[in-house]
Amino acid sequence: MLDVMFIIIVISIVALLTAAHLFYEIMKKPAGSKKMQEISSAIRDGAITFLKREYKILSIVIILLTVLIVFTLDDKNTYLLNEGLAIAIAFVFGSMCSVLAGVIGMRTATNSNVRTTEAAKKSMHNALDVAFSSGTIMGLSVVSLGLLGLTVLSVVFNMVFGFEWVFIVKVISGFGLGASTIALFARVGGGIYTKAADVGADLVGKVEKGIPEDDPRNPAVIADNVGDNVGDVAGMGADLFESYVGSIIAAMTIGIIGFGLTGVLLPLAIAASGIVASVAAAYFVKTRKKIAHPEHILKNGLVISAVIVILLSFFTTVTLIDSFSEAFSIFIAIIAGLLAGTGIGAITGYFTSADHKPTQSLSESAQRGAGPVVINGLALGYISTLIPIILICLAIFISYHFSGLYGIALAAVGMLSTLGYSLSTDAYGPVADNAGGIAEMSKLPNKVRKITDELDEAGNTTAAIGKGFAIGSAALTTLALFSAYMVAAGITEINIAKPEVIIGLFLGGVLTFVFSALTMSAVGKAACIIVDNVREQFKKKKGLMSGKAKPDYVACVDIATKSSLVGMILPGVIAIASPILVGVLLGAEALGGLLAGALLTGILFAISMANSGGAWDNAKKYIESGHYGGKGSEAHKASVVGDTVGDPFKDTSGPSLNILIKLMSIVSLVFVVLFI
Amino acid sequence: MLDVMFIIIVISIVALLTAAHLFYEIMKKPAGSKKMQEISSAIRDGAITFLKREYKILSIVIILLTVLIVFTLDDKNTYLLNEGLAIAIAFVFGSMCSVLAGVIGMRTATNSNVRTTEAAKKSMHNALDVAFSSGTIMGLSVVSLGLLGLTVLSVVFNMVFGFEWVFIVKVISGFGLGASTIALFARVGGGIYTKAADVGADLVGKVEKGIPEDDPRNPAVIADNVGDNVGDVAGMGADLFESYVGSIIAAMTIGIIGFGLTGVLLPLAIAASGIVASVAAAYFVKTRKKIAHPEHILKNGLVISAVIVILLSFFTTVTLIDSFSEAFSIFIAIIAGLLAGTGIGAITGYFTSADHKPTQSLSESAQRGAGPVVINGLALGYISTLIPIILICLAIFISYHFSGLYGIALAAVGMLSTLGYSLSTDAYGPVADNAGGIAEMSKLPNKVRKITDELDEAGNTTAAIGKGFAIGSAALTTLALFSAYMVAAGITEINIAKPEVIIGLFLGGVLTFVFSALTMSAVGKAACIIVDNVREQFKKKKGLMSGKAKPDYVACVDIATKSSLVGMILPGVIAIASPILVGVLLGAEALGGLLAGALLTGILFAISMANSGGAWDNAKKYIESGHYGGKGSEAHKASVVGDTVGDPFKDTSGPSLNILIKLMSIVSLVFVVLFI
Repeated sequence: MLDVMFIIIVISIVALLTAAHLFYEIMKKPAGSKKMQEISSAIRDGAITFLKREYKILSIVIILLTVLIVFTLDDKNTYLLNEGLAIAIAFVFGSMCSVLAGVIGMRTATNSNVRTTEAAKKSMHNALDVAFSSGTIMGLSVVSLGLLGLTVLSVVFNMVFGFEWVFIVKVISGFGLGASTIALFARVGGGIYTKAADVGADLVGKVEKGIPEDDPRNPAVIADNVGDNVGDVAGMGADLFESYVGSIIAAMTIGIIGFGLTGVLLPLAIAASGIVASVAAAYFVKTRKKIAHPEHILKNGLVISAVIVILLSFFTTVTLIDSFSEAFSIFIAIIAGLLAGTGIGAITGYFTSADHKPTQSLSESAQRGAGPVVINGLALGYISTLIPIILICLAIFISYHFSGLYGIALAAVGMLSTLGYSLSTDAYGPVADNAGGIAEMSKLPNKVRKITDELDEAGNTTAAIGKGFAIGSAALTTLALFSAYMVAAGITEINIAKPEVIIGLFLGGVLTFVFSALTMSAVGKAACIIVDNVREQFKKKKGLMSGKAKPDYVACVDIATKSSLVGMILPGVIAIASPILVGVLLGAEALGGLLAGALLTGILFAISMANSGGAWDNAKKYIESGHYGGKGSEAHKASVVGDTVGDPFKDTSGPSLNILIKLMSIVSLVFVVLFI
Repeated sequence: MLDVMFIIIVISIVALLTAAHLFYEIMKKPAGSKKMQEISSAIRDGAITFLKREYKILSIVIILLTVLIVFTLDDKNTYLLNEGLAIAIAFVFGSMCSVLAGVIGMRTATNSNVRTTEAAKKSMHNALDVAFSSGTIMGLSVVSLGLLGLTVLSVVFNMVFGFEWVFIVKVISGFGLGASTIALFARVGGGIYTKAADVGADLVGKVEKGIPEDDPRNPAVIADNVGDNVGDVAGMGADLFESYVGSIIAAMTIGIIGFGLTGVLLPLAIAASGIVASVAAAYFVKTRKKIAHPEHILKNGLVISAVIVILLSFFTTVTLIDSFSEAFSIFIAIIAGLLAGTGIGAITGYFTSADHKPTQSLSESAQRGAGPVVINGLALGYISTLIPIILICLAIFISYHFSGLYGIALAAVGMLSTLGYSLSTDAYGPVADNAGGIAEMSKLPNKVRKITDELDEAGNTTAAIGKGFAIGSAALTTLALFSAYMVAAGITEINIAKPEVIIGLFLGGVLTFVFSALTMSAVGKAACIIVDNVREQFKKKKGLMSGKAKPDYVACVDIATKSSLVGMILPGVIAIASPILVGVLLGAEALGGLLAGALLTGILFAISMANSGGAWDNAKKYIESGHYGGKGSEAHKASVVGDTVGDPFKDTSGPSLNILIKLMSIVSLVFVVLFI
């Protein structure tokens, strides 16, 4: 079976080389005028400074957790490495892979933004080429580093240290823990940064001073652009890296029980099929010469990647699993996951796009003031949870019916298999956004900005579908990890009728609320400090409004960096500490209750926050495009309030909850011996 | 043991007579000028019209459910009545008792409002006397009708029909179902009415036209005042009636298992002790002649009622339970409930009162616009769930530790035992509010309005504590009903590890979100129709602003009535139908998952919505009292947005969720034979 591993490793390396090739192609492109390069390097410096300081804090977290793992998980087995050391190695390796993916994405994005602006001077096609290549680099790096890391680690553990596969699936949970830990901090920190800078820049710039978005006179404008990179590129990359490896690890852990080594290989092989499908879809998009509607091309790419992965995973499953009927049952579970993910994506699009009724009537209610906008936007988010939850329930029901817990885990792997492509369409958004900012700040002609805006919008629909996949897979992955935890803990029931389990359930539920409150108020606090600084700069520097004096961009970048790093500590510590505390104090079954409570409330919140936020954003844009009085009308002002509320919803708290539930499950899985 | 029943019946009847006596005392007081009486009777007519139409719809629901009960629950036993008929009788009787309590409360409130205004011309003491007496009538009617109904029904079933007690506790769940059904519709319908009218009146009156609250020129002003009665009096009364009987029924159902008839009598006896304590506390408040701070007196009453009920329930428990150590364990469970309820109340006060930091910093953030107010208010509500949940967990832990499931049920009974008094302090609020409105509309001197405002504020703290009791008891009552359901279904575990249970859990969670969305958008929709009508009246009737033309009050009352009655149907049907559907389709254990999911998310939402709403309301008032620029400032406008969002949170969706979870549990308990 090691030949399968070999093929998987080759596929991952080829994908990684493809990303490297695309990177050098981008770097060869012209980077525009001196002014443009100045702005671009200010953004890049801000982003790299943030990352450096973030990773400094994270290295402390990693060291502390490594010590905890080594000292608490020492099982004194007969291998060269004991369990604690092996998990610690996997943990550090997992966190390093995640950091690497983040750094690659960030370097690419901050070099591609200005090149996209420059390319937009020529044509839409050129601009899309640069921006989408940048997204593809991110997408392929995330999936290939994830798959390569997991496969190489398993092979090394098997061949160098002589671990049996039963032990390997136990220790690679450490890889997932590393990925989840980085992801949580990166998502929370980056999420606070990006939204604090965004809200801070808008509240003074747009609302008080009446200057447009990305105006170079706004002292917070560079921080805002840095935020797009640290939040939407590095944060999102780490987030999806951990979803991806988390789903594979869960499937491997459950797979070994019923199917032995084949059960371990299958999720890796399906992931590899997905990478092949993603590369193919990416090249399809890159080679389209005539671009009338970039949105259509991106959507076609999605269909192509899905079709290829369905064919390849059918082939893979039938090849690896001996019994055809068993293979077919597993295949159905994978398809159920893919379809549920697509369905959730489509519903997300329906609720958040201005092409459909929900967001349109949200815009309409803006005529009656900010209160109705907020009420209706919240209600929209709440009701939008119904169909995704039903789809998740159906995926659980079908995949479990056809192939048990393994089916649920593989449904998650199936959902995320085409991540390499869908992340490309997601990660190119912030590049297009930045490119627009650079065009505005360096006062390029309007047509350049128009092209970058169109690019940005085209990515919105596919990004919505991508979000649907992320949320759906988080639910299924958590369930699979949950089952893996139960197997590891040796418990067969988590009985809600027991008081300690219901207490665990309550505590898990309240965690979501506390976590959301902390992340939201961190954004609020950081934004307030930025607002105060920007107001002061406008007051003190006399020539600022007329464009004669240069604003102090670094001050705002610095505030955003500090506040977001401070703001990410407490939520992160709570996420890691609470499962350990509940497990030690109330036992393994109560911890199961905690995980279920957090899963339930976390998924519901994640969906409703993402959709409320998306709908508010697009309702505002719908009004800006001329409806209900257009820009500057009372309806527009009301819609800006909705958008401000939606910012931390959709880009800070909501996505962090996805990671929270997975991190808590994987912490429980890794530290399970402490709770028995 | 029938002598204990006799004492309980006598206590209830005495309390009911006390209420009747207070009513005739109020009716003897002067009802003010012709103008005042005109306004008061317009409010009364609007309220009674609403109730009549609401009860017409409810009678259809009751008839349909009765048919369902009679035909599905026919167990063909040897009694004169089969199970279905007996439950149907209990059901109809329970719903009638609830309606009766609502009608008494409403008649009292709509007759007391104008008399409170008239009394406020003389002094604060006189006004408090009328308003508080009115509240006491409501409080005592609710508890005495609840206890009397339950006790008489049990005695009749035992003595007339010869039912054994094991069978009686089974059929009296029908009484709870009746109470819950009325409560849900009354809370949702009344909640939509009151907030739609409130928001509608404010959006045009205060925001657009700049006229003060309760200004007679505002066409929605009568609807607004009717709303106080149908929402805060009739709706809240039905709500607490069902909490009260629900907790007693749950304890009776569980009590018969371990303690036989004694276990059935004890919760009734503790409730009776609470009625005695409530009457005593009410007379303490009524007989205070010098009133410097009405708030202190109301709080002292709360302490007095708690002390008396602790003493009496110790006495009752020791008398009824033979073993002293067993009696003492039960007593500890009751005290745990009382203390947890008080603690939750105190925390509610901390988070929502302008005397403390959370609401003050919420006001402070209003200086940065409506966006931050909404974000921070939501975050405040989320974080405020932490300590209440911990207190509920502690109450569960302690009461279960000392006396098992029966302990949890009795903790809920303990929490609600002093409801007779705490509801008095809660129900006098809308009377004071109405009295202020009548003073404003009939242009009485400012000092009258000042007295009614002070009265209104004084009730806020005690009302917050009352809300804490309501939420805490809902959690414990639901848990107890949940246990009763499991016993009835003959299942000993609800294992989250099973896919159908996790599907149930997900569906239960999403129900809360759907329910909240439906109730919130019903308020939004109804408010919009009222806004449009009011705007049109101002446009078409030329002399309206100058006070020469009389506005068409009835049009707004009519819109509010229709919209709220339409809006209550779907949420109500969902609440009743979903447990039956899940139970029939997925089985008894999955239904347990549904109940747990709804309980978890429902409680968290109920707490956070109540507290966000309360904090927004008081933050606005804090600014109006002169902070951060006072009335008319930008900060004030921002705080009004928060308050508008908070209105459906705290008075429609939030409190309805409390009932939703109890109603679903009791539906499951009553229809349990369908799921086995």
